[in-house]
Amino acid sequence: MTAVRRSVATVCLSGTLEDKLAAAAAAGFDGIEVFEPDLIASSWSPREIARRCADLGLTIDLYQPFRDLDSTDPDRFARNLRRADRKFDVMEQLGVDTILVCSSVSDDAVEDPDRLAEQLATAASRAGERGLRLAYEALAWGRHVSTWEASWEPVRRADSPALGLCLDSFHVLSRGGDPTGFAQVPADKLFFLQLADAPRLQMDVLQWSRHHRLFPGQGAFDLPEFLRCLLAAGYTGPLSLEVFNDVFRQSDPWRTAVDAMRSLVWLEEALGAVWPESGLTVPPPAPELTGHSFVELGVDGVSGPQVGSALAALGFAHTGQHRSKPVQLWEQGTARVLLNASVTRPAAAGVAAVSALGLESEDPGRSAARAQAVRAPILPRTRGADEADLSAVEAPDGTQIFFTRTGPGGWPADFLSTGTTAPGTGVLAIDHIGLTQPFDAFDEAGLFYRAVLGLEPHAVAEVAAPYGLIRTRSVTDTSRRVRLALSVSALRRGGWTPGVPDPQYVALATDDIVGTVARMREAGAPLLPLPANYADDLDARFDLPPDLLAAIREHGLMYEEDGQGGYLHAATAVLGDRVFFEVVQRLRGYDGYGSTDLPVRMAAHRRARSTAAAAPR
Amino acid sequence: MTAVRRSVATVCLSGTLEDKLAAAAAAGFDGIEVFEPDLIASSWSPREIARRCADLGLTIDLYQPFRDLDSTDPDRFARNLRRADRKFDVMEQLGVDTILVCSSVSDDAVEDPDRLAEQLATAASRAGERGLRLAYEALAWGRHVSTWEASWEPVRRADSPALGLCLDSFHVLSRGGDPTGFAQVPADKLFFLQLADAPRLQMDVLQWSRHHRLFPGQGAFDLPEFLRCLLAAGYTGPLSLEVFNDVFRQSDPWRTAVDAMRSLVWLEEALGAVWPESGLTVPPPAPELTGHSFVELGVDGVSGPQVGSALAALGFAHTGQHRSKPVQLWEQGTARVLLNASVTRPAAAGVAAVSALGLESEDPGRSAARAQAVRAPILPRTRGADEADLSAVEAPDGTQIFFTRTGPGGWPADFLSTGTTAPGTGVLAIDHIGLTQPFDAFDEAGLFYRAVLGLEPHAVAEVAAPYGLIRTRSVTDTSRRVRLALSVSALRRGGWTPGVPDPQYVALATDDIVGTVARMREAGAPLLPLPANYADDLDARFDLPPDLLAAIREHGLMYEEDGQGGYLHAATAVLGDRVFFEVVQRLRGYDGYGSTDLPVRMAAHRRARSTAAAAPR
Repeated sequence: MTAVRRSVATVCLSGTLEDKLAAAAAAGFDGIEVFEPDLIASSWSPREIARRCADLGLTIDLYQPFRDLDSTDPDRFARNLRRADRKFDVMEQLGVDTILVCSSVSDDAVEDPDRLAEQLATAASRAGERGLRLAYEALAWGRHVSTWEASWEPVRRADSPALGLCLDSFHVLSRGGDPTGFAQVPADKLFFLQLADAPRLQMDVLQWSRHHRLFPGQGAFDLPEFLRCLLAAGYTGPLSLEVFNDVFRQSDPWRTAVDAMRSLVWLEEALGAVWPESGLTVPPPAPELTGHSFVELGVDGVSGPQVGSALAALGFAHTGQHRSKPVQLWEQGTARVLLNASVTRPAAAGVAAVSALGLESEDPGRSAARAQAVRAPILPRTRGADEADLSAVEAPDGTQIFFTRTGPGGWPADFLSTGTTAPGTGVLAIDHIGLTQPFDAFDEAGLFYRAVLGLEPHAVAEVAAPYGLIRTRSVTDTSRRVRLALSVSALRRGGWTPGVPDPQYVALATDDIVGTVARMREAGAPLLPLPANYADDLDARFDLPPDLLAAIREHGLMYEEDGQGGYLHAATAVLGDRVFFEVVQRLRGYDGYGSTDLPVRMAAHRRARSTAAAAPR
Repeated sequence: MTAVRRSVATVCLSGTLEDKLAAAAAAGFDGIEVFEPDLIASSWSPREIARRCADLGLTIDLYQPFRDLDSTDPDRFARNLRRADRKFDVMEQLGVDTILVCSSVSDDAVEDPDRLAEQLATAASRAGERGLRLAYEALAWGRHVSTWEASWEPVRRADSPALGLCLDSFHVLSRGGDPTGFAQVPADKLFFLQLADAPRLQMDVLQWSRHHRLFPGQGAFDLPEFLRCLLAAGYTGPLSLEVFNDVFRQSDPWRTAVDAMRSLVWLEEALGAVWPESGLTVPPPAPELTGHSFVELGVDGVSGPQVGSALAALGFAHTGQHRSKPVQLWEQGTARVLLNASVTRPAAAGVAAVSALGLESEDPGRSAARAQAVRAPILPRTRGADEADLSAVEAPDGTQIFFTRTGPGGWPADFLSTGTTAPGTGVLAIDHIGLTQPFDAFDEAGLFYRAVLGLEPHAVAEVAAPYGLIRTRSVTDTSRRVRLALSVSALRRGGWTPGVPDPQYVALATDDIVGTVARMREAGAPLLPLPANYADDLDARFDLPPDLLAAIREHGLMYEEDGQGGYLHAATAVLGDRVFFEVVQRLRGYDGYGSTDLPVRMAAHRRARSTAAAAPR
């Protein structure tokens, strides 16, 4: 079996048609669906568009949409046929043979299946005479035809070679439709497949469809099964994405196109891996990631010493110095923090920010090969002759992800020992890293970590924080050795936001938070004070042991519970304007990230900043 | 009757409690509802918050919310009472006597009305012993209690002096509830009123409530009637706003608080005007606005001549020069455009933008008094001894609105005649002004134009444009002599947006667009070319007379229809980076603004910009 062809509807991408074609081609798509408004707004004639697509190596697989074809009013139907003829003219010039015909949403839509079949057959026959064909699709909110079964009925009755079905995963799955029934449709009636994922939302299906679709692997639909049903039924056309999404509509189309391509690669793999006979491409699987090997902070001459002295007070020792670069290694337990003064990623003076993560891989080389196969940006590396070959990719927020092996001969050999050790404060390891995502990249990030690293994205939650709503989502390996806590503001931030509202953070695990934080305070760590009102509320909500409550009050701890267990955590002040540390202790299988405490922590960070700004220097 | 007291829940405003109290006081509120998470995140103790409020002249009218009080599990109910006792402690320190108790959403919520009444009575009795009281509210998504009638039942049965109702307009009206039934509730059981408006949305009521509430006058609910029912039933407490809105949550709270205050002033007027006995404050009504007297563009040495030469080609004559300021008056028909080279509003070099609108008022002085009464920012004016006293206010987008009288002795007398006249091209008047709104100000703007100018806001529509979704809404007087077309991107724009995607525009009316545009082309006006694909689509969709279609193709006209009639319009290139002109002809009672043509126009503007940038200078 030859590889499937991959297409993308121009409506998935932002910009004008010119931008969209270039972006789709650059991401490696084989073809496109031309969304009519993009053509209408273009100064290129249909023939010029066809030529441009040919130059870019893109086929035009579908012209769409044609709305409200059938009508109970004969005059209106005649006018609709005239409109269709004009669109057939455009199709001939474009060189596309299939047009999407949506089930009518009009008041005059035909309900009677025979009459509907007859009208569809009439239009199909006019198309057929010109070598064109109609792919009829049930909109989930169609007036009389709103399920794929209902769309099949008139197509079956019409029995015209130029009339078949377009099956759109959103329209089928949003209504809980059953794709196993595709098997009953003759393969030569399966004209076109449109793929979209979506989160499960309780809302009007039209609004859900027009605003919140996602690329496969970013939502909640079982698209591998949907695709399996269609391929098993004999579909041989392209896998084509049709995603209406408010964010993608206004994001860089080159970037969105890569995200879209990754979603198809992921989908083909998800199905191909369980159905080898499908012949679908299955890239090398992602090797298991077994832990956080390091987190690197980009620093400068101002923020470096500030973070260094905070690390010392948190119980870290400056144990190593890189052989060829201005990078310090700080360690406590298996938690390793690199302070890199040569990070080229632009940041304002005095800023410290997460620049890279080291993730321990069973096989770093295979991790890199996997990343490449699923279209992750691979980072070029410069290294000294004796230094470890670290494979790295760039995450959607710009963080570099290194695949590491920390054993003998691994990356730590690049560091010369300083001979320093420290007794430590009880920090055992990195628990997780909290990464604020760019507004446009939140859904892309979920798929990136899933497809590139083989991590599992968990449910999206929403928190009401002082400067607006925040969405959070974690990605982890199944054993929870790697945890990333992603967050994003629900709306892109505007001018009103005192300070930096969403710093990144590094969460350090301990099994005795009270002792650990006490030792840190003793050493002068910049721990964040929390309001007494917060502890009073914990007292009202939970039956906490009195000594724990006293420790919470004394040390500014935060506490929350999930269905499993409890979570104690404490934060430091924001260091270098953009990053802070947390110390965390998980109790009885707690699996969250303390997100209900986020508003209290943010307000405390703002106070600490105001106080610091007001204090005499 | 004394004036009603006006309150605002802290959850309506962005920021920390410190910001919110200051903003509420600055906007003139009498009191606040303390939203518990704001208190918990505050470093001020409840006593300190009480002191701060007293200093600001704010009373604390409600502590909220208390969730999931009742329980079928006796242990759980006991724990809930303990939790309530702790909150009663907080209330005593805050000096607030009423707490909002929401109907439970928990699995263990009590269904049996007698048992529910008994548990509410138990809690109320503990509150009553401390001089406190519970205001019980039906959440629209409560497990067993989701209507106000269902919340009244246990309150009635409990018959406790410390137990009454909280009535929230959203929870009642979102479910289509009937507020006329409030009359059956004894006045001393009407403990609290929460007001929120909302657009009509087809979505899960919880999501609708948490994300899309609006201030009164900004949505679709009949809040004057809701308030009438409650006041008629004997309610004497504050009018208090509780609005959960994603945009307000992240916008400048000082600004939001003024918007909130304006909404209450508007609501009291809306009811007071039809029910004088209510004693509600009714500000002086807005005098009728009878037309556009001028539009002023702020220009500089680069953009001024560019706009001037475009105006000349559009058939305008430079008829006047201001006596004391660098302002030119250009006229054609009754359309007047001022080019003001002394506008202080900051703009980049070479930019031209709408800086002011002149609206013809029956009584400019009363218009200004009205504006002040409904909290519009009044602009200070400097004027020469002989010059007209122009009263002006600032709209939410920063545009200055002048109330004018154009007759003899009116503002045109400030201009010395240049003696120039021009034959004109057929422009008769200003049809409307298109104003792009700041992302945070769209809902505020609807209420501003309604409350301040007495204009009518029309339905919000959404258009899929090349760089993202755009919301549009017009505001007009009832006779359509004043029309403003407001627009905003559905999401705040990010980095990917080629050029300036949302320019402002001035639409000029003609009754012969083909002749007018032909004369403008002849004179070298910078008209915007449109794609042939667009005219082909018009031909497919409409039965246009062949000569009209030919003129559309020749002159780059746009055409759309609404239920009434048709609309022909043509745009110029963007001048001075931010503004363009349209020429428009309304046919057969068409009442729209050509918004379906917006994507085509935007793509054409981008092409024109790219071409201009590429052309040799």
